[in-house]
Amino acid sequence: MDAGPGRPLTVDADVHQSLPDLTPHLPRHWRERWAQTGLGVGTGYHNPRGVLRQDTLPPDGGPPASDPLFLLSDHLDRYAIDYAVLTGPFVLPLGHDPDYLDAVARAVNDATAAGWLGVSRRFRGSVLVNADDPEAAVAEIERCGDRESVVQVLMATTTREPCGRRRYHPIYRAAAERGLPVALHPGAEGAGGAAPPTPVGYPSRYLEWHSLLPLTAMAQLASLLCEGVFEAFPDLRVVLVEGGVSWLPSLLWRLDKNYKALRDTTPWLRRLPSEYVAEHVRLTSQPIEEPPHPQQLEQVLAMVDAGRTLMFSSDYPHWDNDNPEVLFRRVDPAVRARIMGGTAAELYGLDGPPPPEQLPPHRSGGAADVLQPTGYHE
Amino acid sequence: MDAGPGRPLTVDADVHQSLPDLTPHLPRHWRERWAQTGLGVGTGYHNPRGVLRQDTLPPDGGPPASDPLFLLSDHLDRYAIDYAVLTGPFVLPLGHDPDYLDAVARAVNDATAAGWLGVSRRFRGSVLVNADDPEAAVAEIERCGDRESVVQVLMATTTREPCGRRRYHPIYRAAAERGLPVALHPGAEGAGGAAPPTPVGYPSRYLEWHSLLPLTAMAQLASLLCEGVFEAFPDLRVVLVEGGVSWLPSLLWRLDKNYKALRDTTPWLRRLPSEYVAEHVRLTSQPIEEPPHPQQLEQVLAMVDAGRTLMFSSDYPHWDNDNPEVLFRRVDPAVRARIMGGTAAELYGLDGPPPPEQLPPHRSGGAADVLQPTGYHE
Repeated sequence: MDAGPGRPLTVDADVHQSLPDLTPHLPRHWRERWAQTGLGVGTGYHNPRGVLRQDTLPPDGGPPASDPLFLLSDHLDRYAIDYAVLTGPFVLPLGHDPDYLDAVARAVNDATAAGWLGVSRRFRGSVLVNADDPEAAVAEIERCGDRESVVQVLMATTTREPCGRRRYHPIYRAAAERGLPVALHPGAEGAGGAAPPTPVGYPSRYLEWHSLLPLTAMAQLASLLCEGVFEAFPDLRVVLVEGGVSWLPSLLWRLDKNYKALRDTTPWLRRLPSEYVAEHVRLTSQPIEEPPHPQQLEQVLAMVDAGRTLMFSSDYPHWDNDNPEVLFRRVDPAVRARIMGGTAAELYGLDGPPPPEQLPPHRSGGAADVLQPTGYHE
Repeated sequence: MDAGPGRPLTVDADVHQSLPDLTPHLPRHWRERWAQTGLGVGTGYHNPRGVLRQDTLPPDGGPPASDPLFLLSDHLDRYAIDYAVLTGPFVLPLGHDPDYLDAVARAVNDATAAGWLGVSRRFRGSVLVNADDPEAAVAEIERCGDRESVVQVLMATTTREPCGRRRYHPIYRAAAERGLPVALHPGAEGAGGAAPPTPVGYPSRYLEWHSLLPLTAMAQLASLLCEGVFEAFPDLRVVLVEGGVSWLPSLLWRLDKNYKALRDTTPWLRRLPSEYVAEHVRLTSQPIEEPPHPQQLEQVLAMVDAGRTLMFSSDYPHWDNDNPEVLFRRVDPAVRARIMGGTAAELYGLDGPPPPEQLPPHRSGGAADVLQPTGYHE
């Protein structure tokens, strides 16, 4: 890897490490529950492809993305990715017992610190929080937010109320005070105590459910903007992970237009909704939309000011993983460099290429026989 | 008006006639309820601008759009609109007593026939149905669908389940058998028994609620496509009224991509989702998105194949009414002619300009003092 100064970085903003055994990190009284039911609520949607790439099983066993050394070789080295932002094996759905979900969040964060962030500085971590219990979420940000290699707070895109509402503000305050962006990641849409994943109820199948996941990101972005979250927390940055990209112009045009007519109903706002997005919001790219005509994607990237707002992500090792070698090939090289790492490096404070590391010997080939599902289903 | 053969028609696909007094058209036992509570459920969102243009009050009294002769002069003549498709004073929200809503639908349809469709052939009517009671909706289509000047079935975009599901199929069968498109119109989002208008619950204010209305249209389109409604009813046409336009490419790109991976889960589909849209789905234009750069709207219109899918609408007399004189001015004239009327004329079977009519004398100036709300809030 070329480590010369000024070399453009490549940063993958959405990589899912697996944590097959959370048990040692859970309090004794939750271990049996975790072993028996895991998160305990599901979305009810089934992807017959599975949700994990069948070619990513580590040669030494375990489910995909459970071996940090293999992930380094199989994904980061293979595609010359400098850093991977780890987004964990799942986000927390809206379950019913906040204490249990709070404990699972702590276990995920401790398992990630022990098993991943300590292995390589090329891994950057998220503080998973149970946003449905804001007080506990703040405590978790205080507990883990200053840890080595932690770069953001991570919560489910699905919340019980629109996420701009006041009950969630303590989370944003705690994150902004530490310079940590708050990332929203799908996967909990329609699960547990969540509202139906569409305004007309529950889609019948995974194809429809997955295609409509952007609805949740759209609703949350509108809430953050209209509730004035970015006025209340001027240092806050929000990352919409895996929520789609090409809906953004449509929503912002509509919000800007309506804001011009109705701004007296949101007097706490001082700029157009789209202006807050340019400064405060970033989106990850996977699964990138694939228009029939490549120039249409270029047009959309210009509409979203992709050089400023968009960050490459692969979603490794998930089923619809985007391959960085074929992404954004027609895009202006300077814009592409921003997408592939420049914007993420700024957002996450990555000042240069990772220094050389001494890693233990490991097998870099891939082979395996059994796929195990993780908690993620998108 | 030039009535020469071959003249391009201008058709307004969304005009809201007011029906201030439904009472004579309601059975005696519902009249008191209507007088006391009207539809009885609201969305809970307030637009301080009001929802009706303050300059459209008829000079002879009554609320905006309550005088068909004044509407002809104030809107159709003023903008050289040949035909207006009437979409009524409201769509039916998800209330609790189906019998009451069924009766209101019948009253709206009878009042429209008596007070509007009989006045001028330039008005074309919708059969309002309570989609939540499909059997009654079918009966209403049978009762009114063959009436003079009726051109479509109209239901709320908001339904209790995604509208592609089987319980709604009898409505589509009855409409398709008569060659009537089914129009979905917003206004009931989050009201009564509806699911929350976003996957994360209820927005706090009208600005946010109104900006997110496209979510409902997106979910319904995905449901119609994924459930195979257009395979089951090859003659069915669906009109998404007032649901936004520029989100369509994003949703179809995502649906097409996912369909390629998961088509075995919807074996009843034989084409890409986007191909069904091109043949079976039309969108109305108001409120048209207003990008910061005009060429971005042109790009979006190309992405949605606007010459095939998009139909001009004004939403007269609502607050955010689009003025046809300033719409689509940069668009290729042939495409613009399709948008402004060609596509609607085909869809609704309008074979040529309306013949000259003898209308009773009426005042065409405008003036008034009091605005009365209608059932529509979008």
